[in-house]
Amino acid sequence: MADDCIFCKIAKGEIPSTKLYEDEQVLSFLDIMPAAKGHALVIPKKHYHTLLDIPHEELREIMAVVQKVAAAVMATCDATGFNVIQSNQKVAGQVIAHLHFHIIPRKEGDRLHFEWEQGKAEKEELQRYAELVRKKIK
Amino acid sequence: MADDCIFCKIAKGEIPSTKLYEDEQVLSFLDIMPAAKGHALVIPKKHYHTLLDIPHEELREIMAVVQKVAAAVMATCDATGFNVIQSNQKVAGQVIAHLHFHIIPRKEGDRLHFEWEQGKAEKEELQRYAELVRKKIK
Repeated sequence: MADDCIFCKIAKGEIPSTKLYEDEQVLSFLDIMPAAKGHALVIPKKHYHTLLDIPHEELREIMAVVQKVAAAVMATCDATGFNVIQSNQKVAGQVIAHLHFHIIPRKEGDRLHFEWEQGKAEKEELQRYAELVRKKIK
Repeated sequence: MADDCIFCKIAKGEIPSTKLYEDEQVLSFLDIMPAAKGHALVIPKKHYHTLLDIPHEELREIMAVVQKVAAAVMATCDATGFNVIQSNQKVAGQVIAHLHFHIIPRKEGDRLHFEWEQGKAEKEELQRYAELVRKKIK
């Protein structure tokens, strides 16, 4: 546990949260500053900073809960879709340095916008880049 | 396989892609209209529309590849963070109706913006809503 980590404190029950699901390893609760009604978070109870820090055996358990909670949120609210967003490092918008998945319900006319301007890339450039990435895959 | 699904065709090799990783169940390739250099996609080869459609045993394999590819992309490019974005249904920005995870490298000064305006929610409202959601969790 990181001493000053809000999510560690929530996981330990030292700070209250509106829980949706809890088991030994995973906790899900409603975001208190929601982008939309039903905006939920899923976190490992153990402290990991980013997606690259958590062992994949533990990530599995998190993802099973992401599915479970997303299905329940969709069955509860009048949304017609949802985004899962997971941000790593401050530059990517990670505010709390404890791995978390956002589940954000969507509906027509909401003011949310997670799309991006699509870029263009030369096929040769992509090929060259892919070759470099493939060498780094473990 | 869905007959008119571009990602099914890519998975079958009928449409070329710039592959980063491939195994029996999972494929990763570079997005041809990238939000940033190194923007990668990870998909199951089998056709599933959304995150709610894939069995969690298969989702595990996808997530192991998301971690693998994200680590390799980060080791290759000069990004200092990344977002994982997964959109379900058109209303959420899902363009291709075949489950996929975006891995988007981030760096200071890029023009990407996946944050949202943080809302406010009354504690009582969250509690009431959480109770409804908890009843739906299977």
